[in-house]
Parts: sequence; structure tokens; C-alpha cells
Amino acid sequence: MAQNKKMVEAITGRDEDFAKWYTDIVKKAELVDYSNVKGCMVIRPYGFAIWENMRNDMDRRFKETGHENVYMPMFIPESLLQKEKDHVEGFAPECAWVTVGGSEKLTERLCVRPTSETLFCEHYAKVINTYRDLPKLYNQWCSVVRWEKTTRPFLRTSEFLWQEGHTMHETEEEAREETLRMLQVYIDFYKETLAIPAVFGRKTEKERFAGARETYTIEPMMHNGVALQGGTSHYFGDGFAKAFDITYQGRDNKLHYPHQTSWGTSTRMIGALIMVHSDDDGLVLPPKVAPIQLAIIPIAQHKEGVLDKANELYNALKTKFRTKLDDSDQSPGWKFAQYEMKGVPVRLELGPKDIEKNQCVLVRRDTREKLFVSLDNIEQEIADLLVKIHDDMYDRALENMKEKTHVAHTFDEFVDIAANTPGFIKAMWCGDSACEDKLKDVTGGVKSRCIPFEEENLGDTCVCCGRPAKHMVYWGKQY
Amino acid sequence: MAQNKKMVEAITGRDEDFAKWYTDIVKKAELVDYSNVKGCMVIRPYGFAIWENMRNDMDRRFKETGHENVYMPMFIPESLLQKEKDHVEGFAPECAWVTVGGSEKLTERLCVRPTSETLFCEHYAKVINTYRDLPKLYNQWCSVVRWEKTTRPFLRTSEFLWQEGHTMHETEEEAREETLRMLQVYIDFYKETLAIPAVFGRKTEKERFAGARETYTIEPMMHNGVALQGGTSHYFGDGFAKAFDITYQGRDNKLHYPHQTSWGTSTRMIGALIMVHSDDDGLVLPPKVAPIQLAIIPIAQHKEGVLDKANELYNALKTKFRTKLDDSDQSPGWKFAQYEMKGVPVRLELGPKDIEKNQCVLVRRDTREKLFVSLDNIEQEIADLLVKIHDDMYDRALENMKEKTHVAHTFDEFVDIAANTPGFIKAMWCGDSACEDKLKDVTGGVKSRCIPFEEENLGDTCVCCGRPAKHMVYWGKQY
Repeated sequence: MAQNKKMVEAITGRDEDFAKWYTDIVKKAELVDYSNVKGCMVIRPYGFAIWENMRNDMDRRFKETGHENVYMPMFIPESLLQKEKDHVEGFAPECAWVTVGGSEKLTERLCVRPTSETLFCEHYAKVINTYRDLPKLYNQWCSVVRWEKTTRPFLRTSEFLWQEGHTMHETEEEAREETLRMLQVYIDFYKETLAIPAVFGRKTEKERFAGARETYTIEPMMHNGVALQGGTSHYFGDGFAKAFDITYQGRDNKLHYPHQTSWGTSTRMIGALIMVHSDDDGLVLPPKVAPIQLAIIPIAQHKEGVLDKANELYNALKTKFRTKLDDSDQSPGWKFAQYEMKGVPVRLELGPKDIEKNQCVLVRRDTREKLFVSLDNIEQEIADLLVKIHDDMYDRALENMKEKTHVAHTFDEFVDIAANTPGFIKAMWCGDSACEDKLKDVTGGVKSRCIPFEEENLGDTCVCCGRPAKHMVYWGKQY
Repeated sequence: MAQNKKMVEAITGRDEDFAKWYTDIVKKAELVDYSNVKGCMVIRPYGFAIWENMRNDMDRRFKETGHENVYMPMFIPESLLQKEKDHVEGFAPECAWVTVGGSEKLTERLCVRPTSETLFCEHYAKVINTYRDLPKLYNQWCSVVRWEKTTRPFLRTSEFLWQEGHTMHETEEEAREETLRMLQVYIDFYKETLAIPAVFGRKTEKERFAGARETYTIEPMMHNGVALQGGTSHYFGDGFAKAFDITYQGRDNKLHYPHQTSWGTSTRMIGALIMVHSDDDGLVLPPKVAPIQLAIIPIAQHKEGVLDKANELYNALKTKFRTKLDDSDQSPGWKFAQYEMKGVPVRLELGPKDIEKNQCVLVRRDTREKLFVSLDNIEQEIADLLVKIHDDMYDRALENMKEKTHVAHTFDEFVDIAANTPGFIKAMWCGDSACEDKLKDVTGGVKSRCIPFEEENLGDTCVCCGRPAKHMVYWGKQY
């Protein structure tokens, strides 16, 4: 158990230094490696397997809601990026620019895509002609680049992987429905797959996406009381359509501009996974995305019959769960620590005495609970346990979010909570962005997270200026 | 049927102008759209769905052979690219260079990856320490950029999607085995999934990948007698390992350099699919990768019971095959032409008379054969038919390859065949690259395709220079 101890000690405590704890996990669980390229990360096999599980799950949800995948070029000519004014203002400062191709200087420089609205619009202008061509429900999985000064694995990197949905609709109503439908897909995915609860709603005008008329967001709460923008869904109106001259012949035989949405999530969700669920021994992964759901560790594996039985179990269970049998010559203690660090939801221990009793030991990663289970019904026991682990992880995350959600009725209360009890602050707001600016300044970074769909009435006046309140807003610091 | 006729006429004949026929199919089957970005293509939903099916199939094969997916940065600092001399010489002329990030000029310019050997090596240098860390069997799905002057969708574009495997091994023997194993995976994939036969073997020294000690290739034959390099697998020895200082402590406790491979295939395989199988009515897709395997077309769908029965069939079959029921208000003839253009392997026609007889009509896309089939056993009939279509497509492609494979015993014969009967030329060769150069010059582009694993003895002397022959080589023009 000496090695077990040592591995555990190698991680900074979560309450001691949250930022260092986070990067320790990212490294020790072998999720990423830093690269020589400033701000870019290498996503290692274990990290990428998590992303593959997330991607496959989301992709299924997108296809079930009628979306199709496409692939757009990774370069955007500067003139194309400039077609929509608000959009280029939002993104130009963080573009990486290709200026040389082969040995020749380009006549027009190309931006490596930070997002692909402009490319989709250019294509839509060609393929949308009549109402019969609508809706267009496209999605793309790709990498994008935003030149960042300070970076952190998964949370903020110059290059990251994401999906971006871009859709076109006949009417504003349809487009607005799509925007909300995809927000709901994200909410469901967070809950059902990542075991993460969140608040959600629409962004204030100040926090909207560049060029959007409405931005919806899902905002999960990290363990340390900092929020994370977990995914956004935008309604664009016909602004881009006008800028790109996208028109369709309507049912009335007249020309109309279609209504547009976009929505996206990224590898930053892996950051959320870590910061919501993990602990001082490493990753804790929800079963649905864990690359290994079950680790079988033989005890006293040199004794007769142990490896045979372990292999028999492995062969029975591997078609049902993502299972790993570790019969390497490392000690059981080393293996325990290893799979704990990697967040494997269930460990199955099997030794000579267990075999005698026709049982094994199941150990939950999330609670460390040990269960002695008959081998007769092992498959069902594990299936039930994985469901229970998921549900319990969700409940604990929900508990954490509730604990870290506070109500401020006055300016002083707001400032006090921001300084002393990090988390969400629910407070009334007048609708003026000047108050958002002021609250951000005095608190060192607390911003409006969203206006929820169901607002509570916490009073009649803005917590900042005292004028009549228009909305209840969730506020908080963010990654 | 007027519209059917019209759509068919819209494609240039394959024998009339092969290049135009190809681009007609690519556009009319809605596989790609050209973009404003020079040399880059938009892969549309139908084209991307083919790629997804190919990718999922290959990815399964990679995982079954023990490989793991990762993601490396898309940028390579110029100094990193220059670490392996042969490699940089091969790729520098076709790099796209990022020179500005945000608003600042970069101190070192970054190449958008044309291939990622250097990035993998940089990472391997950090994570390989002892023989226990070997083998490393990594693969990456991503897009790469090679600045091309003239481009053609799927076959040659400035940006394309691909997979690149990069592996590290303890011994030369193991690495060479891996190189051949992955070539075999490609051969199997081409045969079992794409229904495409090919010749395969190793490249001559002149045709090797930049920096490789051995390059293996799979070379399918297109319908017009031009070959396509369909996938390559390289053994690198320890050249990169030395350049990147990658060492491991061996079982003998001494430091060693590991042995490396890489192997890749790309969206160019979609070009092969088109040029091997398709015809004057459009795409012909092998069932394994067809986005729609079965199109159900109701006949006289306004008549009572037709749509009900069509829906009943659709619901029964959609879980078994990728099925589309087209009950739109277009005419059956228009629909026939539409799904023919898109290469859907089987069309199911169902009209009132069929329903009376408890039957339907199945029409094969590849042969146009019509089959009247009882509805009692329809699922099994379709399953069998899809297998038969695959096998017949493979056989026809094999027949085409055989017809287009010629033997040249003399220089004059070689030149005559090259000029008059395009295809593979089997001919003996002395091993001197000067003869490759000469044959290429006099034939306007015929190059060595590969030295097969089983060489025939076609004579004792080089077809070019008359000196003693060392190898039998497949020669041919290429895309």
C-alpha cells in the first residue's frame, strides 16, 4: 500500500489550492500533455476516450433531433469574416492569421476559424432557394482557434475541439424554437450523461454572442463556487442572412430572409466534469462517459484459480460494460490508486477467499463504499450500481449547487456574498448594463450568468442602483 | 419520367469525359460544394455521412488492433518541423504558415499541420521512458493542410480529412510487423467495406514518404485505367527517434531508440469510391457505406392503403437497414432518378397491385435488376441482396482491374501500352531510379506504383535499360 499512499499524496488537495488540484488531476490522470505550441494541448488517449464518449452521446441526440453533420473549411478569408460587423468585432482580436501558403505571400490573409457562422452562411446562400430547402439543420465537429494569452487545459486553450450547430429556418418562431430545443438537448446531456445539474436561461444583452439577438446558456456550478459557461445556443434573427444575401422564395412566392441559429459546446465540458465531481484522490467519472466503467483487480493472483476466475468474469462482463482486467505484476494497492486516479466508477476485487464464497467485492469510486456481492447475479448488480452512482453523483452536485446559491437583496449583501461565499448570487436587476459593469468592478469579476426562465420575485428594486427591477438574474464568477 | 430523363442527361457520360463526369457526380449527388477559400471544399451532409460510415468502420478496425485515439495541436512551430531533415524537405514547400496571432506578429511562425510525425515525436519523447511504455499505438482523426496549386474535390484539396496512425515499438521487427498489419487493415477495409480490390506492396525508394525507410501502399484501379494511392503505411526505423531524442530503458537496462511507424488514409477514398463504382446515372455506393441503403418509394401513393403499408414496411425495416421512405409529392420517376443519382443500393417500390399480391419490387442500383419479392420474407431478402450487391460490385471492380492490367516485356511495348491502353503495366525493373525517371518522361507520367509481395518473373532484364532485373513492378499513371 506504500505506492498507493504515494500516488495519493502526489495531488494537491482540492480545498488547499483548487487551481493546482485541477492541473494535477489533468496531468496525473493522463488526460492531457502540454505541447511546445503556445496555448495548445495534446489530448492523450484517456482524455480523448472521454471526449469520444461525450461526442458519440451528443451526436446521437443531434441526429435524433434531425440534424446532419457537415465539414466546412478551416480557413476564413478576411473579407468573409468582415461581412457581419458585430461578429468580426467580436472575433478579430483573437484570430490566428495565415499569411503565407507554400512559398508565396497570400493576397488575402486567412483566419483559422474561431467559429464558422460566416462559412455556413456563404454555403447556405448557395443551397437555399425556396421554402422547400428549409429548415437546414447542420452541425460540425471540428477544432477551432482563439488566440489566448493565458491558458488552462480544457478551460481556455488557443485551440480546442467543439461542435457547432448552424441552422436556417423559414420563420422567427421556428428558429426560436430550435434555439430552445438545442439548449434543452444540452441540459439533458449534462444531467443524463455528465450527471451535472445547472442553471440555465438567457444572457443579458451585454453577455450575448457577437451578432446574436438572443443567447441562451447552461451554467453548471463548479465545486469551488465558480460557474462555467457550459454551452450556448443563439438566435440570430436575419442579420447574417441579410449580410450574406441569403434569401428563399416563400410559400407566398415572395423572397424572404431565413432565420438563423447556432449552438455549441466544447472540450471545456471535460473541465466541468473534473471540477464538479472529482476529489483529492483524482478523477471521479460519471459511468456514461468513463472510458473504463469496471476495473477487475485479482487479489493474490498467483494463487491457483484466481486468474482463471478473473478471466471468466472479464469475458462475461466485457460485452456489457467497458471493462478492464488488470493482471499486470503491479501490487493490488498500486492498481487501486491507479484506477482511483483515473476515476473508474467501479472496482471489482476478486481473491481466493471470495472465490470460495462465490462472491466478489465491488468498490464505488465516488463514495468508497464496499459491497460484497454474489457472483450469481453480478452483471445485474453492476448495472444497477452504475445507475446508482450516476444518480448519487448528480444529487451531490445538485446539493453543492444549492449550497453555493445565495440571495442578495441589497448592494452590500451582494458585495459581501461575492467576497465571502463564492457561488451563484440571485438578485434583482434593472436591465441596465451599467449596473452589470458596476457589480463586476466592485466584486472583482462577478458577472450576470443568466436570466432564468422562471424568475423568482426577490424584491422590486435593482440590487445595484435601486431603480425598479426588471429581472431576477443569476450572478457569479466564471471560468 | 420526363424529369427522370432530364436528371440523367444532366451528367456528362463517363466514357465521354471522365474528369467532367467525376465532378458532375460530386456536385449532383450533393457530396461537396466549392468554397470561397482557394482549394478547400465544403463536405455536404450526404458526402459527410459517407465519410462517417467509412470512419466508424475503420475506427473499429483500429481499436480491434489495439490502437487508441488522441488529438495533437494543429500547429507545428517551424523549428519543430525542421528537426527531421528529409521530412521538412518533403513538406515545407506545401505548408500554410500562421504568422500573426491576435494583433501580434509571432516570433516563430507556425505551420498548419500537413502531417503530424513531429508533434507525435515531441509527445513521445515525454511519455516514453522504459520498455513498459511500449508499444505506443496512437491514431488521430483530423484535418490537414497541404497548399495545392490545382485541386479536385476529394482527390487533391488544400485541406482534407484523414486519419494518421503513429506508433512506437521496442524492436525493428515489431515495428515492421505493425507497418504490414496496418496495410492489411487497409486492404481488408477496401475489400470488405468499399468493395474495392487493389494491388499492394512496397514503394520504390524514389516514391517513399519523406523520412521513411519503407513505404507500403494500396493502389486501387479506377474505371478509366488511372491508379490511386489509396493508403500508405510507413516504417521509419529510429530516424525520428534520434532527431527527437526519444529513448527508452530496455529490458537490458540500457537506453535504446524505439522504432516508429505511421499510416494514413483520407477523404480521397471517397474519390476512389466514385471512380471505381459509379456510372452514367450517378453514384453507385457499396451498401456498407451508403448513408441510405434502402429507399422506399410508394407508387400511386394517393390510393387507399399504399402509404399505410409503406409506413408499416418502413417501421419494420428501419431498425435493420438505413432506410428512407420518400412520401413527398414528387413523381415516382423523379424519385427514382434522385436515389439513383445518390447511389442508394436498393429501391423498394410498392403500389396498390403489389399490396394485393403481398409483394413489392426491389430494384438494384448497380445492375438495375428488378426483383418481385414476397413481403413475408422481405427483411431477409433485402439483407441477402445487400450482401450480393457488395460481392458483385467487388467482382466487377476486380474484372475491371484485370482487364486494365497489362504486361510489358520490352521498352517499346511499355510505351505502346502506356499510350493506348491505360491501366497497370507489369514490367521488370533493375532497381535504378534513373529508369523510373526515364519511363515517366517518355510516357507522360507513368510511375512505379509498387513492388508486390509476390513478384512474377516476366523476364531477366529491366524493361527500360536492359540491365539485370531485380523486381517486378506495377506501373501506372496516378491521381
